[in-house]
Amino acid sequence: MRMRKKKHLDERLQACSDLIIQDIAQYMGDIKSVFEDDAPLHMEIGCGKGRFILETAKANPGINFIAVEKNLNVAVLAAEKIKNANLTNVRFLTEDVNVLRQFETDSRLDVIYINFCDPWHKHSYRRRRLTHEIHLALWQKLLKANGEIHFKTDNKMLFEFSLNSFSDYGMRLRNITFDLHNSDFKNNVMTEYEQLFSEKGQPIYRCEAIYR
Amino acid sequence: MRMRKKKHLDERLQACSDLIIQDIAQYMGDIKSVFEDDAPLHMEIGCGKGRFILETAKANPGINFIAVEKNLNVAVLAAEKIKNANLTNVRFLTEDVNVLRQFETDSRLDVIYINFCDPWHKHSYRRRRLTHEIHLALWQKLLKANGEIHFKTDNKMLFEFSLNSFSDYGMRLRNITFDLHNSDFKNNVMTEYEQLFSEKGQPIYRCEAIYR
Repeated sequence: MRMRKKKHLDERLQACSDLIIQDIAQYMGDIKSVFEDDAPLHMEIGCGKGRFILETAKANPGINFIAVEKNLNVAVLAAEKIKNANLTNVRFLTEDVNVLRQFETDSRLDVIYINFCDPWHKHSYRRRRLTHEIHLALWQKLLKANGEIHFKTDNKMLFEFSLNSFSDYGMRLRNITFDLHNSDFKNNVMTEYEQLFSEKGQPIYRCEAIYR
Repeated sequence: MRMRKKKHLDERLQACSDLIIQDIAQYMGDIKSVFEDDAPLHMEIGCGKGRFILETAKANPGINFIAVEKNLNVAVLAAEKIKNANLTNVRFLTEDVNVLRQFETDSRLDVIYINFCDPWHKHSYRRRRLTHEIHLALWQKLLKANGEIHFKTDNKMLFEFSLNSFSDYGMRLRNITFDLHNSDFKNNVMTEYEQLFSEKGQPIYRCEAIYR
């Protein structure tokens, strides 16, 4: 489905242009140079309307965040949230994650968040799942040694697939929960999607997977 | 609950006495010497009425099996099944698994099966769960390096607990499924309990955990 372009999208993006990475290629040698300081760097893949990145960045001023969202209609909402909150520790990459494959940078990220990504139900599309080994290799390239994936989904099939994929890739699993909102996990930051689905009584699955 | 003793239990156990390990202490130096040959050795913890061990032993004549079941009322049913099938590759240990703690043997087992063990719902009883680290240390002592636990349960809480426990213990997970009977897993051997619960539409969870 091709989405209708949001009204005044270009002007609104323009107003947030200082938060949007204009030319990712120029940081190819060092992704951390997107920011001026050397704070730890986290990345969210598919930030949607930005509630998660807003709350997470607000709660962690000592960490820098890159939020990836190729859909400009929602990326603009996320960027506006960050701008309105006057946060300086978030930048947006409004391209497909696969542009990151060109990076020659040393692995520098500490954490990658994957929240409610497309499950790609059909088996023949499984390579597109962001926890497929094809993507795990990309995240590994971007992350430091022992870097972490923090993964949430409401999709049981995708969670089962992902646990196996993480394990088969040799990653260590931690804090696995089949029902995040009724678990001991503290300080969960909900995404818009998560709120919607959990209000319907849908359990949320979560785990952390650590590269060795 | 103390169970009523089955009728003629002593005579029936006596009739299977060649299949029941009478004095486990005598094998303390080498658990494999329970059998006369040196075939690979697997163990089932809590074999119940024995359907799993019967079918598994029948399908794998080149493997020896020790089935542990402290409840004599069900252990006798399992032993009678093996006797009636004329299988020579199964022995029963009718004691609490914790007697195995005394073993000084080199680790010799290849696989340990834990099928539908008591979930011990109460948090204060969690140390009794057979996938708690207290027991993982025991299984590790009995297994070879890279030995495997094959684990099944219908209990979601116990499965979640166990995945975390295996991972936190540093084990590698494999073939995780949240719905065994609708998964790609081949050659599943059902236990009596499994048949009962799956007929009620209850999904069965399964995974393999490998020591490093």
